[in-house]
Amino acid sequence: MMITVQKFGGTSLSDERGRRHVLRHISRERATGAGLVVVVSAMGRRGEPYATDTLLDWIDRNGRSLPDREKDMLLSCGELISAATLCSLLNREGIPSVALTGGQAGIVTDGRFGSARIAKVNPAKIAEHLADDKVVIVAGFQGMTEDGEITTLGRGGSDTSAAALGAALEASVVDIYTDVEGILTADPRLVGEARPLAVVSYEEICNMAYNGAKVIHPRAVEIAMRAGVPIRVRSTFSDSEGTLVTRADLAREKSGWMDRAVTGLAHVGGVTQLAVGTPEGPSDLQLRVFRAMAINGISVDFINVTPAGILYTVGEPDADLAIALLREMGFEPRSRAGCAKVAVIGGGMNGEPGVMARIVEALTESNIPILQSADSNATIWVLVSEEDMAPAMRALHSAFSLHLTP
Amino acid sequence: MMITVQKFGGTSLSDERGRRHVLRHISRERATGAGLVVVVSAMGRRGEPYATDTLLDWIDRNGRSLPDREKDMLLSCGELISAATLCSLLNREGIPSVALTGGQAGIVTDGRFGSARIAKVNPAKIAEHLADDKVVIVAGFQGMTEDGEITTLGRGGSDTSAAALGAALEASVVDIYTDVEGILTADPRLVGEARPLAVVSYEEICNMAYNGAKVIHPRAVEIAMRAGVPIRVRSTFSDSEGTLVTRADLAREKSGWMDRAVTGLAHVGGVTQLAVGTPEGPSDLQLRVFRAMAINGISVDFINVTPAGILYTVGEPDADLAIALLREMGFEPRSRAGCAKVAVIGGGMNGEPGVMARIVEALTESNIPILQSADSNATIWVLVSEEDMAPAMRALHSAFSLHLTP
Repeated sequence: MMITVQKFGGTSLSDERGRRHVLRHISRERATGAGLVVVVSAMGRRGEPYATDTLLDWIDRNGRSLPDREKDMLLSCGELISAATLCSLLNREGIPSVALTGGQAGIVTDGRFGSARIAKVNPAKIAEHLADDKVVIVAGFQGMTEDGEITTLGRGGSDTSAAALGAALEASVVDIYTDVEGILTADPRLVGEARPLAVVSYEEICNMAYNGAKVIHPRAVEIAMRAGVPIRVRSTFSDSEGTLVTRADLAREKSGWMDRAVTGLAHVGGVTQLAVGTPEGPSDLQLRVFRAMAINGISVDFINVTPAGILYTVGEPDADLAIALLREMGFEPRSRAGCAKVAVIGGGMNGEPGVMARIVEALTESNIPILQSADSNATIWVLVSEEDMAPAMRALHSAFSLHLTP
Repeated sequence: MMITVQKFGGTSLSDERGRRHVLRHISRERATGAGLVVVVSAMGRRGEPYATDTLLDWIDRNGRSLPDREKDMLLSCGELISAATLCSLLNREGIPSVALTGGQAGIVTDGRFGSARIAKVNPAKIAEHLADDKVVIVAGFQGMTEDGEITTLGRGGSDTSAAALGAALEASVVDIYTDVEGILTADPRLVGEARPLAVVSYEEICNMAYNGAKVIHPRAVEIAMRAGVPIRVRSTFSDSEGTLVTRADLAREKSGWMDRAVTGLAHVGGVTQLAVGTPEGPSDLQLRVFRAMAINGISVDFINVTPAGILYTVGEPDADLAIALLREMGFEPRSRAGCAKVAVIGGGMNGEPGVMARIVEALTESNIPILQSADSNATIWVLVSEEDMAPAMRALHSAFSLHLTP
């Protein structure tokens, strides 16, 4: 049996319009004869009674002292209520379905409450229900430890549930329904010319997601990638095919481009650049600084070590703590708040020496100073001032002709 | 380790005042050194977001087609949210606690969704947490089948959870906290002189509960009785000892009465009396009538078979159906709506021939016609007109001197 996994986010199920579309997607896919597994998130936004944030607010008003284990038990209810709701809606349409908790669906996790990792998936129970011709609804974002503790998967949890089920069931595709028309070349609020991509590689979407594009969580992509299961990111509210996420070679073949160095852009604002100079020499300094950041849970980025000192960035919420830690250690850091990371992403840029040159050229022509740069094999980052972020995105989008379709 | 099981109903946890009292009872019991297991119901009343009725209303507005299995999954969330809330409140007070689902607490049920029966309780996990000096909070009303399906226990479910845990853990007592000061000799809305009972036997409270007293579910009492675990029915909002429910011999000993024929009264209104007469002779008639009632799920009571026909009662909601069924069978039943059952209950009435005489005397003196009567070894019922119900209760309460304390 061909199996399709569909995942619907919290807002898709929280109003009548969204539900109509959800039912349409389920009916359409079921009509193809595919076995259907539907992963749901908790419904709605903060304020609606069964949304995740509302449940957390409830505890804030009631003791504000919930251990992580019990917080997971509480939060798991959001997805259970979603799953039961969808089951009721499908039943009314005459579509037989069954709703499963993460644990019942066979999602076995470790015991890190609040950010559990999936150890394995035992798909036997799902397979039984599929054989009974039922749509199998699975509460996303949650799993169960070997000894029966309820866990949640942390950020991007329902995407991760969907990808893990897709991998375990060897699904032909995992459809992630969202409120956008797939993955765009850039954020359309910043770049008017941004257009949907027909296909991207797993690596590219991971880089986009790690760099601020909010379409799908990288954990989910990595799981799908390892299993070779394609993902489609598509809109709940239309019938468009969205963006297919697949292996790099297939992505290149299906993209229509013979050769494409750059696929898209991503951005993250709210970054503070820190510079620490010292006569001590770099090695001991580096060790002490990054150890202090790590112990205090501060993520660092754009790390640039030179004989004269260290340059790196932290997120704005961590900046004050980072500066205080550096001062405690006897340093007098210089800081520059209000920076932004702009990422130029493309699986095809590897071994293309011209890419960095074109980035520098495009930004220089727009009079945008590059505060720092960094690169990996499929991404080049530039740090710019936050007010330059949108102009930089537009300049780069145009420089790499990302508005063109093949 | 001595173990106490406490059960708090839904209204106890839904406002600040109730919570303060709940925390007080938990702290006080914990100070005795007893291991403490706290069973909670879903919070609040219809309209409050996590109340059982609110969850059911949610489905009524969303598809209205939830299978029983998924309804249990949905409803189980009400108690999970209660349990997490209490855990947070205890934590804030510095009282270490852990919250368990019914399944995690080891409550194994059959698969009758909506009205599951407890097959067994595996108390190992609870015992572990008690050994860690934690208050163990258990979501009431729910269990899990051997193969991991979430079930609910139906009416009186949280009382039943508490009694079953008390039995499995060999608790020294199961405290059922409620909004009344224990078990009263009669409903105080009908009988102004009603007073709390210090002690009653399991049999007596079962008879009271089966006959309309809403203090505790008979299933819970039967489980406690079989295990010999005493129950105390007591008020969340005071420190009174409430009513101890225990073995008949201990109850007699502790009641302070040398000899007490009658312990209390109970009542149920909304009863319809049906009379079916026929020349056929009674045996075939009886079989056909009661088979038809049973097939259609109609509970019958006050059954009185004579050569001339049958007299029996049904609940008002079933009356029209019962009459229609009788007509289909070719009978022309006479019916009398607006009747009430008044039960005179006492473990000591067995072999006391004077009890029935005193009932008849008391009602006759008050000009209350007895429409029918029935009796078992510890209860005598009389059927009266509904407008006579309260006067009958008062007359009987006074005739048996139930207002007196020993």
